[in-house]
Amino acid sequence: MYTQMPRFAIIGHKAVTTPDFSLNDMPGGAGRMDVLCRCINTSFFLSHDLRRNVECYLILRGGDEDITLRFSGDTIRSLNPDERSAGALIKKGLTTPAEDQFKKAAGGIVIRKGGLAKLLSEYPFAVLDENGEDIRSPETLPENYILSDHVNFTEEETELLNDLPRYSVGPRVLHADHTITVIQNELDRREQQ
Amino acid sequence: MYTQMPRFAIIGHKAVTTPDFSLNDMPGGAGRMDVLCRCINTSFFLSHDLRRNVECYLILRGGDEDITLRFSGDTIRSLNPDERSAGALIKKGLTTPAEDQFKKAAGGIVIRKGGLAKLLSEYPFAVLDENGEDIRSPETLPENYILSDHVNFTEEETELLNDLPRYSVGPRVLHADHTITVIQNELDRREQQ
Repeated sequence: MYTQMPRFAIIGHKAVTTPDFSLNDMPGGAGRMDVLCRCINTSFFLSHDLRRNVECYLILRGGDEDITLRFSGDTIRSLNPDERSAGALIKKGLTTPAEDQFKKAAGGIVIRKGGLAKLLSEYPFAVLDENGEDIRSPETLPENYILSDHVNFTEEETELLNDLPRYSVGPRVLHADHTITVIQNELDRREQQ
Repeated sequence: MYTQMPRFAIIGHKAVTTPDFSLNDMPGGAGRMDVLCRCINTSFFLSHDLRRNVECYLILRGGDEDITLRFSGDTIRSLNPDERSAGALIKKGLTTPAEDQFKKAAGGIVIRKGGLAKLLSEYPFAVLDENGEDIRSPETLPENYILSDHVNFTEEETELLNDLPRYSVGPRVLHADHTITVIQNELDRREQQ
């Protein structure tokens, strides 16, 4: 048995940090929040079940200062697979004012100030990179993965990520949410062995 | 080089067949149309690109008679990754009255009457089944895959699918859209070899 708590952290470069966005315009006014909603979906959903051992971190960079929301599979409530459902939970999470430490914002959701640097100081993360090692190859895989939304990591982020191990999910560059699905499938297969 | 035209056909058991559904209530009033929207996303999207060689068939069973919409990657227009974008194209496709033969409904979208039996008479399909052969195992993989939405195949469908080859994407049962992502990844890897 191969027990893990996989963590997926996705950087939303333009994603807003206030709850006043419209669920009808998540790609536009909310700064590609739709990408982050799909990452929540692929982090947690199994057929008629949730992956209770997973944590998903959204690093929202579209406001005055970075905000991090953490979703925990073991305590998340009211999450359905559609994008609007995840968007509604992000809105709900953002109604709680962020402080330096994580604070409960809703069932299974906590919020704090800070972004990538803070998270990297807490857990060892790997980075998804088309030139990284194929995730099917290594004997053991990392638990924790950093992904970017629809744009590349910034120079400042790249600097922070520079010394981390790099993995690829295959010959084509995929959307962040699809990348999470492929990693989950690889982790599922290894857990079964 | 391994050239293919993968086809993904997804049965939407409750999915409506008229365009008067709300993009704000695709899981409810539109009969879990959100599942089909996500399957369109994972059939076609690469990072900053589309899979031009793919066809995606939606078999809508929530009306008086079955309707099939076909989306073609080589000619599809105005498709963005968010669920509402795919939903808007489904709505647009459904404004064209269906006849027995495929008829153009929008750029890259055609519509016709009929469902699973008709499609199975045209192409050899494989079925996704948790007890099927692991897609990583066989020397060659099928091009065409039938999937169900959030519910199991009906008895009538199971009868039609009974003699088809069956494949599994891994040890856990996944949502239809996630299953498509895993198949695409396996096809990508084989194409590269």
